[in-house]
Amino acid sequence: MKERNTVVDITGRTKLFAIIGDPVRQVKTPEVINALLRERGFDGVMVAIHVAPDALSAVLHGMKHMQNLGGLIITVPHKTQAIALCDDVTTRAQLVGAVNCIRREPSGALTGTIFDGTGFIEGLRGHGIEPRGMATFIVGAGGAANAIAFALAEVGVLRISIVNRTAKKADDLAARLRARYPALPIDTQMAVPTGHDLVINTTSLGLSPGDPLPIDPALLEPSQIIAEIIMQPELTPLLVAAGVRGCRVHPGRPMLDAQIDLMAAYFGIP
Amino acid sequence: MKERNTVVDITGRTKLFAIIGDPVRQVKTPEVINALLRERGFDGVMVAIHVAPDALSAVLHGMKHMQNLGGLIITVPHKTQAIALCDDVTTRAQLVGAVNCIRREPSGALTGTIFDGTGFIEGLRGHGIEPRGMATFIVGAGGAANAIAFALAEVGVLRISIVNRTAKKADDLAARLRARYPALPIDTQMAVPTGHDLVINTTSLGLSPGDPLPIDPALLEPSQIIAEIIMQPELTPLLVAAGVRGCRVHPGRPMLDAQIDLMAAYFGIP
Repeated sequence: MKERNTVVDITGRTKLFAIIGDPVRQVKTPEVINALLRERGFDGVMVAIHVAPDALSAVLHGMKHMQNLGGLIITVPHKTQAIALCDDVTTRAQLVGAVNCIRREPSGALTGTIFDGTGFIEGLRGHGIEPRGMATFIVGAGGAANAIAFALAEVGVLRISIVNRTAKKADDLAARLRARYPALPIDTQMAVPTGHDLVINTTSLGLSPGDPLPIDPALLEPSQIIAEIIMQPELTPLLVAAGVRGCRVHPGRPMLDAQIDLMAAYFGIP
Repeated sequence: MKERNTVVDITGRTKLFAIIGDPVRQVKTPEVINALLRERGFDGVMVAIHVAPDALSAVLHGMKHMQNLGGLIITVPHKTQAIALCDDVTTRAQLVGAVNCIRREPSGALTGTIFDGTGFIEGLRGHGIEPRGMATFIVGAGGAANAIAFALAEVGVLRISIVNRTAKKADDLAARLRARYPALPIDTQMAVPTGHDLVINTTSLGLSPGDPLPIDPALLEPSQIIAEIIMQPELTPLLVAAGVRGCRVHPGRPMLDAQIDLMAAYFGIP
């Protein structure tokens, strides 16, 4: 996964994979997937494709007919729109209302799923953090928060608190979580992370220099684990501040690394 | 052009090129174009995409919206159908009725042209053969024959004779040549290459073991040049037989090599 230069031997027999986003310049997935393909000796290549939201439907409709297409990774801002363009989706994708991984079946059908939540869980576990039984606090209620919340519920956390700038989105996510997991305590009234074991920032605050902090670090306790899904910078201002407070911090990269393996398996890359 | 292993560093900023065919397993263009891209330090990659004829329209319509798409190479059997799917085509493509190279303009428009004929001419010239002023004999009247015939007419050959299994296709090509080049003698009655300087097989006979010869080599004269557009095998049975007769032979590969440079320029690869 450290490999930056990707060696690919592309021929007429090479299976095609693509990541679709808008913008797409910043994605790191082609480097990581192509390194994996090479390591595993699989004759495939991943390219990045820049598609605007109003063109996603036409592009996916066309790509259904690319017979050597192995699969697609769908990134921001297409994950929600893409679910409606799949021929079939997993229960997990239905619950979250989004897909980030699409496989082309030999029939040409597009089957979608989402690995954001599972990837986050597996990224924690890969670093020795077991979320089962934890009181969890999610900042944000967008696509990533949805995926992570359902994955946390699935692995059996103790409770989930959701705080979001727009309360309606947090309430909507909470209602869908309660419908699926009626026994799980879900809270959207708690504004501070006090009393939670795992605090997760799913907003984009911290991605750009000068962003305000998503939560006040003065509220953090040294016993808490503070997790990000932002990959760049590796240590966001929130993680830096949490580290200063004595918290354990968990950066965004393990979530991507864990998803890569899940996606490779979904694509049938042995 | 000897390079078989293509080293490509694919990132989110890499410009995408593709060759589309059915089948596409046999194409050698990705290796050649990717070697060229690497040589020239251009951040681009060419992949091969397998598309059936009935899906070409949907695929090209979708690919219009891939904002980092540089261009497409169109191969058998899509060259004729693809011309109608372009937003704009060159005069040369209009005359031939086919495209084999499509550029995506920044507006998203697809502009098409055909380099089969020019590539054939430049391939000859690269090996010291100047077709201007030659009496030429074309076997076949399909897409490649059309492209080559118009290119020969454009460079000022002395005359063109066309022989084809289906006379109607040869007559149709001859009529379109006469309409564009009224002063150029075009013949479709002559069944033998006697009296011609340059004999070109544009049929696929010679591609598969056991194919009959496209013309009787006993009719060839040592002063004649015999040219193929078949790349594999490099020396077709016709070329072997012509060589035995003392003719100069010209294989198919130079036509591809010349086209690669023309296509790279068309795609704006410096």
